[in-house]
Amino acid sequence: MKVAPKALLFDVQGTATDFFATVCGEAERISAGRCEGVDWGAFVTRWRAAYFAALESATVSREAWTSVHSVYRRELDRLLDHDGIAVLGEEEREELASAWQRLTPWPDVIEGLTRLKKRFVLATLSNADVSAVVNISKRGGLPWDAVFAAEMAGAFKPDPAVYRMAAAYLGLPPGEIMMVACHKYDLRAAGALGFRTAFVARPDEFGPHGVVDVVFEDEFDINAADFLDLAGQLGC
Amino acid sequence: MKVAPKALLFDVQGTATDFFATVCGEAERISAGRCEGVDWGAFVTRWRAAYFAALESATVSREAWTSVHSVYRRELDRLLDHDGIAVLGEEEREELASAWQRLTPWPDVIEGLTRLKKRFVLATLSNADVSAVVNISKRGGLPWDAVFAAEMAGAFKPDPAVYRMAAAYLGLPPGEIMMVACHKYDLRAAGALGFRTAFVARPDEFGPHGVVDVVFEDEFDINAADFLDLAGQLGC
Repeated sequence: MKVAPKALLFDVQGTATDFFATVCGEAERISAGRCEGVDWGAFVTRWRAAYFAALESATVSREAWTSVHSVYRRELDRLLDHDGIAVLGEEEREELASAWQRLTPWPDVIEGLTRLKKRFVLATLSNADVSAVVNISKRGGLPWDAVFAAEMAGAFKPDPAVYRMAAAYLGLPPGEIMMVACHKYDLRAAGALGFRTAFVARPDEFGPHGVVDVVFEDEFDINAADFLDLAGQLGC
Repeated sequence: MKVAPKALLFDVQGTATDFFATVCGEAERISAGRCEGVDWGAFVTRWRAAYFAALESATVSREAWTSVHSVYRRELDRLLDHDGIAVLGEEEREELASAWQRLTPWPDVIEGLTRLKKRFVLATLSNADVSAVVNISKRGGLPWDAVFAAEMAGAFKPDPAVYRMAAAYLGLPPGEIMMVACHKYDLRAAGALGFRTAFVARPDEFGPHGVVDVVFEDEFDINAADFLDLAGQLGC
């Protein structure tokens, strides 16, 4: 690696947490047997895709911010209506949309972060709302030194403003910061600005049957199987 | 108390950390006997006053931010020049100004925060730079759930924009957030916006001979002797 990093920035939804299992489980729990025949795994995959499409087309700024919770909620309503799933009421829909604020960490995350924290500053860099990242982290015991999120930049990743905001707040040049993500578009955006990059494979991001790109690439400074492997490769 | 808070916001310089002992100690260490006759306690008290005056007159925004480190550094140079203290070179001045990023927590802080963290979301709300708060917290082991600082609002406390930024990021109404500080102007600004308030007395903020207002006031929801007392009064 050209320069050893001083700080690591982590994607949260997908990289640090298993949204698929969490949100599917919450859909099963909240629907409580009233949605027989619904494939919640396929539903959550479409929900996540709708979220990505909404973020790409969102026109936001710090002054006119669209909360990610409201995006998940709106796309949930559209999908339920499209599929003719009418049994979920207002409060249940709100509870299901809020499942994205209760995401469970992958099994390797807490031990990996605890080892990495001894040597590096650890912060999030998430497109989720600040409050969602705080809730997820407190619930899951994720030991960040700081929480940074797109909301603080008034733009969503992969907009350069998000990565630059984190570098400014850390008081470090991009070359001393490593972006950690399971999404290559996120790493490529950070890398283009001079950040170091670490790809972490999350083959189950969309469940046991999901299609996920987990191919290691030479373009990244590190390719890791999980956070324990990442810690090992960084000497922790 | 009218409403039990869900989150607590903490001032850092003075309330959570002992800047006087830290910065005096660093001045003694860095000057290494070359500044005999200099009363570093009086110097640090004047330095802090110069910082406050500079922040009051600062014209800042998110786009044109003045780092607090640069304020401390500029005021240090002015005071050293005024007092005719010429022995400290460029690197030593930079190291001394950086002492504000290495502030030591008061003895009750880590245990108090650890107890409070079980029940509440804990975040900073500091006028110090984000990087300074991160450095202080990591060095001192302060277990925040999030780091918020004036830099994120483009304004300094007691500007309402700073408190409103924290409420927006927490996703909570002001009435569910408690501001914790040893400075009454900070609490009064938060209280005027509907935040709950907790005064923590820090009689040694300016050293054993310093003049500090530690009178408990009925206008605050809580008056506490330290963070352990605060935790006890909040049922932790």
